[in-house]
Amino acid sequence: MENSRLIEYARLIVKKGLNLDKGQSVVLTANLEQLDFVRTVIKECYLAGAGRVVVNWLDMEIDKMAQDFQTEESLSALMPWETARWQWMTENFPARLWLDSDDPDGMDGIDQEKYARTLSARLKQIKVFRDKIENKHQWCIAAVPGVKWAKKVFPELSENDAVEKLWEAILQCSRANGDAVANWNGHNERVHKLSQKLNELHLKALKYKSANGTDFCVGLMDDGIFAGGSERDLNGREFNPNIPSEEIFTSPKRGEAEGWVVSTKPLSYQGTLIENFAVRFENGKAVEVKAEKGLTALEKMIAMDEGAPYLGECALIAEDSPINNCGILFYNTLFDENASCHLAFGRGFDICLKDFEKYTQEEIHAKGVNESTIHVDFMIGAADMSITGIDDSGREIPIFRNGNWVI
Amino acid sequence: MENSRLIEYARLIVKKGLNLDKGQSVVLTANLEQLDFVRTVIKECYLAGAGRVVVNWLDMEIDKMAQDFQTEESLSALMPWETARWQWMTENFPARLWLDSDDPDGMDGIDQEKYARTLSARLKQIKVFRDKIENKHQWCIAAVPGVKWAKKVFPELSENDAVEKLWEAILQCSRANGDAVANWNGHNERVHKLSQKLNELHLKALKYKSANGTDFCVGLMDDGIFAGGSERDLNGREFNPNIPSEEIFTSPKRGEAEGWVVSTKPLSYQGTLIENFAVRFENGKAVEVKAEKGLTALEKMIAMDEGAPYLGECALIAEDSPINNCGILFYNTLFDENASCHLAFGRGFDICLKDFEKYTQEEIHAKGVNESTIHVDFMIGAADMSITGIDDSGREIPIFRNGNWVI
Repeated sequence: MENSRLIEYARLIVKKGLNLDKGQSVVLTANLEQLDFVRTVIKECYLAGAGRVVVNWLDMEIDKMAQDFQTEESLSALMPWETARWQWMTENFPARLWLDSDDPDGMDGIDQEKYARTLSARLKQIKVFRDKIENKHQWCIAAVPGVKWAKKVFPELSENDAVEKLWEAILQCSRANGDAVANWNGHNERVHKLSQKLNELHLKALKYKSANGTDFCVGLMDDGIFAGGSERDLNGREFNPNIPSEEIFTSPKRGEAEGWVVSTKPLSYQGTLIENFAVRFENGKAVEVKAEKGLTALEKMIAMDEGAPYLGECALIAEDSPINNCGILFYNTLFDENASCHLAFGRGFDICLKDFEKYTQEEIHAKGVNESTIHVDFMIGAADMSITGIDDSGREIPIFRNGNWVI
Repeated sequence: MENSRLIEYARLIVKKGLNLDKGQSVVLTANLEQLDFVRTVIKECYLAGAGRVVVNWLDMEIDKMAQDFQTEESLSALMPWETARWQWMTENFPARLWLDSDDPDGMDGIDQEKYARTLSARLKQIKVFRDKIENKHQWCIAAVPGVKWAKKVFPELSENDAVEKLWEAILQCSRANGDAVANWNGHNERVHKLSQKLNELHLKALKYKSANGTDFCVGLMDDGIFAGGSERDLNGREFNPNIPSEEIFTSPKRGEAEGWVVSTKPLSYQGTLIENFAVRFENGKAVEVKAEKGLTALEKMIAMDEGAPYLGECALIAEDSPINNCGILFYNTLFDENASCHLAFGRGFDICLKDFEKYTQEEIHAKGVNESTIHVDFMIGAADMSITGIDDSGREIPIFRNGNWVI
């Protein structure tokens, strides 16, 4: 990929994704294979005034060896230097950036039960810190093509061609062509208008229906908010948590979800692919699951903790969206979730509750925002999907017909 | 390079370099460009029984950006997670491995004064921890070809060819051909015999002379020891701190060094090349320096702290050694120091004092082992070099004539 386009993309991530304060630190998490692009992003961070850029390097092959050879006790421990870094983050509120290039099959073949237990143990220790920084600073997830990821998306191409084609798709879908910052200013404005319309309807529930078997109703919170595009942290800094982002989303009301939802895209969870699955909800909880592939990983995931089988997100995306239109299955949630209506198991979003900052965590959960160490999206959008809103007077309002917005 | 030879080399590093205890942790420091070989080494560590492998990733371009953009205060700080890792090392005594692939010119163009000050500030904070682990656990430095390093050594070759040729040279010079472990068993035996001979002479001083202008005498400690090849840590574990290693070395007596020494190879210090330099010593201290290139870096280096202008090492290597014979100038101390007699500015070695573990640090320094945050080798070997030992009765004993051993 031409360097000028990569610099434009890095600048988009730093300026619109993070929107750094002068002197603010950045914690950047990235795959070791992305060294060149990480260097480009670090330079843009410093040019934007970053005081310090700390990189947290990841490598799936090294992680996999650790899973294979280390004891469960060793894998479950948050090491003193990890604790120290989290503690520092709760005191310094760095902007956080994750450049995702994970191999969708990268963790295949490991002991999934051991992995789930050690991950759960680690996430529990991290949650204490994460709760202290949530909504207080900017964060952003964007993507960079990894070789194995690119070969998964374009198996017929050579490694180089696959990476190049995935770069092109990422930049297109991320609206990082031409003046990327201007593109995102316009995009954020459109998304904010649509979510405002939805919020003015004061919906109590959403009913989903498709010929694929989805027949599902989910309750919404009394003070729930639909959000999308750029957000503001509690210091008023505007940032874009996801690049790309096409969705308008809310956190549903915990305890109110009934019926079957059928997945319409594979879910890559911690390096394992879960395909053609369906979930039945009762009183808001997943009580029955089916899957043609990856059933064990799915079962482990929703058994991760008490909140894991409840929903944390309902997101609405038109079938006529840039990512869906490009026709590529990315095997990556950041993209595939923005191609299709989706739900998420696990943690809900405080920001989807009006005036959330005035409430304690307990009050937020009592109002219906689910709590969990996980947050995993899965896709349910379909070309024939109809979504109907029900407002506080019981009136039915068509929101989606044949997969697209009708409000 | 063929994978089988890389695995053999990784195995040599882990088995002879580190010689891990079952369940012992490893802290591995490596350049980001060496991902493939690092994965190979990590696998060998686990196969040898490592409990945990922690990787500390380095990148000169990222470090250089930090130097350019961060404040001096920010660069001088040891971050909480760094402190936590050092603290953990003083409690857990992991084996430490450094895979060196630094670009010899990698830090050219930065503000050398700022760099020296921030480095000195960091090293002072680290020293507290390093003092607690010194000699208590195994450590090893070995090399991996970086692209820029390879192009520096073989500027006429393409990047790929240069890396391949540097791999070949590294493996040859590291005796990692055929059965590498067996090679090192034999090599260690030969080196131990030679150092034993030297120790039996009870030398008080070494006099160096060459037609290039070197005319220099350095004092040796009463209980000084010549060492080389494998060492034993205080737990009795045998390890090879340097791969390759051809030298027999001791720590001279601080305060006793007189005359001029003339460098015979360039010195790459923190990414800056210092070339054709000479140093005059008086009462053990460097009091006059000259250099055709890099004089500022040399001056900064020996002004780093109180002990920096004193000597910490005298190492003897025959001109007829594998690295010198291969005729390659590596621009890397690990190799170039093993091609040629050398001295080092800065920190001396406790292990070069007999029964050092029975003394306090203060007593060790009082006996003549120099103390400093730095330890920087520089080469003085020459084809006509003569080295003469003087024993406690004043007798002169020829050690080197025309650059080679004569004992």
